[in-house]
Amino acid sequence: MNLMNIGSLSYEEYENRTVAFHGCFSPGLLIGGFMVDLALRSLPGGALYDVICESAKCLPDAVQLLTPCSIGNGWMKILKIGRFAVTFYDKHTGDGIRVYLDTEKLQRWPEIRSWFLKLVPKHEQDTRLLMAQIKEAGCDILSTKPVLIDVARFQKKKGKPISICPQCNEAYPGEHGSICRVCAGILGYFSEADVLLPQKMLVA
Amino acid sequence: MNLMNIGSLSYEEYENRTVAFHGCFSPGLLIGGFMVDLALRSLPGGALYDVICESAKCLPDAVQLLTPCSIGNGWMKILKIGRFAVTFYDKHTGDGIRVYLDTEKLQRWPEIRSWFLKLVPKHEQDTRLLMAQIKEAGCDILSTKPVLIDVARFQKKKGKPISICPQCNEAYPGEHGSICRVCAGILGYFSEADVLLPQKMLVA
Repeated sequence: MNLMNIGSLSYEEYENRTVAFHGCFSPGLLIGGFMVDLALRSLPGGALYDVICESAKCLPDAVQLLTPCSIGNGWMKILKIGRFAVTFYDKHTGDGIRVYLDTEKLQRWPEIRSWFLKLVPKHEQDTRLLMAQIKEAGCDILSTKPVLIDVARFQKKKGKPISICPQCNEAYPGEHGSICRVCAGILGYFSEADVLLPQKMLVA
Repeated sequence: MNLMNIGSLSYEEYENRTVAFHGCFSPGLLIGGFMVDLALRSLPGGALYDVICESAKCLPDAVQLLTPCSIGNGWMKILKIGRFAVTFYDKHTGDGIRVYLDTEKLQRWPEIRSWFLKLVPKHEQDTRLLMAQIKEAGCDILSTKPVLIDVARFQKKKGKPISICPQCNEAYPGEHGSICRVCAGILGYFSEADVLLPQKMLVA
């Protein structure tokens, strides 16, 4: 019997939900689970917390699985910093805690260190040993730091006017300018195709 | 009895899962559900699809609830375009479909139009009528367009080296430069605090 808990879930429940949501139970999601768990245990209850992830890889899914914060409701945000760290903060006062994977604590855990710092190619990685070390290490590889966040910077901007783009005729945030960011050539990411998928086969 | 389905879920299952994951059953999540459902029905089976959301509001959670794509596994990406649209594309060929809320089709649905274009303040909004109109409209307010995506642009960059930042001693993507983006002052978002939350009470 395994009595380890991650957030409000048992280890097995967390593993099962992770596979269903994320597609697999990855090293990053297991460490992420311990990070979220540590943050939740470190914070006083009764406040509303928002979350900032410093990495888009794995970590955001641990937050979404273990808290009410999601990318779509805006209570979790991602900054492309690329550090494996997450900050929970009181959305009214900005008081919070930052939890991070502490490279100085990895000396005792060679398999975790090799994976995290990409010291060995993935096909040479002993995934079973890696997951076992992460499970055994738990919060031992993490550190925390009290932080203060400028809440105004991350608050939702409500009531901003919507415009209709004169080029594509779609709605977009008026503050972006006189046309939307796709028609302006700033964030275009597709070209229009005449027909769906079979086109390639017809051309070939 | 309600036989309407959204993706592989019944309407009621989708509503329940939405409340559990997102905190509430919002207009954006209901329309988002129909959008994902329409995309899935429009695409040939048997391929692996990645997703791009043009808005960070609500829509990404509909994708995460109804597909294996999440922000943390990288199969869903968000571009801050601010249009209510989502693109599903074959991750190998780039062939895909873009589904968008079509402003020209909103004339028949005044409550949806008022909400979507923010024509009335939220407290004057008739939320029950709004949700009823969205449910009745279903895919009638949506349009689709075949698109082609440059897949190379969105592929995961694997095997990039990790550096240790000489200032904070944390790991970060080496391609960011000689120090991490927080220490470089590019993406700093917190100041360090001496102690957690009670400090304010002690000072007061």
